[in-house]
Amino acid sequence: MIEIFPIAGIPDVVKGDNLGKLIVSKLAATGKEIRKGDIIVIAQKIVSKAEGRIVTLSRVKPSKFASEISRLSEKDPRQVEVILRESAKIVRMKDGHLITETKHGFVCANSGVDMSNVGKGSDNATLLPADPDKSAATIRSEITKLTGVDAPVIITDTFGRAWRLGHVNFAIGISGMKAIRDYRGTRDMYRHVLRVTEMAVADELASAAELVMNKADRVPVAIVRGYPYRRALGTAKELVRPEEIDLFR
Amino acid sequence: MIEIFPIAGIPDVVKGDNLGKLIVSKLAATGKEIRKGDIIVIAQKIVSKAEGRIVTLSRVKPSKFASEISRLSEKDPRQVEVILRESAKIVRMKDGHLITETKHGFVCANSGVDMSNVGKGSDNATLLPADPDKSAATIRSEITKLTGVDAPVIITDTFGRAWRLGHVNFAIGISGMKAIRDYRGTRDMYRHVLRVTEMAVADELASAAELVMNKADRVPVAIVRGYPYRRALGTAKELVRPEEIDLFR
Repeated sequence: MIEIFPIAGIPDVVKGDNLGKLIVSKLAATGKEIRKGDIIVIAQKIVSKAEGRIVTLSRVKPSKFASEISRLSEKDPRQVEVILRESAKIVRMKDGHLITETKHGFVCANSGVDMSNVGKGSDNATLLPADPDKSAATIRSEITKLTGVDAPVIITDTFGRAWRLGHVNFAIGISGMKAIRDYRGTRDMYRHVLRVTEMAVADELASAAELVMNKADRVPVAIVRGYPYRRALGTAKELVRPEEIDLFR
Repeated sequence: MIEIFPIAGIPDVVKGDNLGKLIVSKLAATGKEIRKGDIIVIAQKIVSKAEGRIVTLSRVKPSKFASEISRLSEKDPRQVEVILRESAKIVRMKDGHLITETKHGFVCANSGVDMSNVGKGSDNATLLPADPDKSAATIRSEITKLTGVDAPVIITDTFGRAWRLGHVNFAIGISGMKAIRDYRGTRDMYRHVLRVTEMAVADELASAAELVMNKADRVPVAIVRGYPYRRALGTAKELVRPEEIDLFR
């Protein structure tokens, strides 16, 4: 059995905050603890805030290119400037949508640049962590230090999808576990070799955790207990489909 | 808190089996029961088998078109014939992959036609249920009749994704709950109106359930307990992005 529970009541995160410490103390305050086998799932927003990955739009000077794109994409030119700085390439631009490939290789709207939840009346935007795997590793190591339990950490963000409506939560940074579970060589119950062989379990864990995170509440962290993950250094790069084998880029 | 547990040991399903009855009796055998608030997640394969959605390849006569496509896609022409019969259109064909839009509107490899797990040494292929919402409604109504508990049912299949490696589990049939949770109009903790407003919670529930279903084991059913779903008639059509607003078709 798998259990998923939210860690609620984490206070407003600001630059320099130690998220590992915050999570451990908030858990303790609710009479809970991190156990061997737990996976810690953290929404990108608080990671970006703790790392100071925030841009004040009023201080951004849009380039000529950004201003041009802003006309085509019906967005604030300064916001477009930030989106372009965070992108490796524009994948699609149409009907006011700007789908980019981020420098990490993630394909998502607006390079993951987000205007919501950044502070009262501000014109701030959060960027994705520069190196989400490293962010995950830092938090994991802090939690191990404080609790003695080495639990994998997954950092997540919600993206839209091709072909389907609604957003789901995805893994964008991983430390301590394999992102993909490989069934190659295993056989199904009729002894056929399995055809669908690789499951993106880190994405499934991200989606599972989102069910208790609830975007509108103050629940940026969840614990998944009971999933038999495969221990590894871990990286979300495992989940990025190289462009050469992507039929949709 | 959310709990997810597998229902293991469901016997081999054959055409005409009553899945609702099978699930309820298997649960009872393990000392468990369906409770108010539970969501029942069922892998497509056993639904297709119970509904007789199986094709014997040796009895399939490939059309000229299917034979042509089979050369281009490096597949068995009879398999291609079945895939084409199940499709509304071919979305991409390259490097041995055949990505189609099914008659339900799902974009996936091979119209969801699957050669694995169908029987010893057979050349059978399973097709997706013809009307997965209806399949879900039938099972839900049977379970309500047997237990008195009206629990939503989600039927799932694992598909690949654009941009990302690894498969994840998706909702393809739904009865009894909203597929999408709409946060439009709600405000984040800084009183901004939330930008990411619609979460595809049925897909997240499918992914969450897959974590205990494990493709290689005999676990085609899972129960998700504790998710505050929104009651509705329910349909997976809510999750299908219409082609007019899909930048990737």
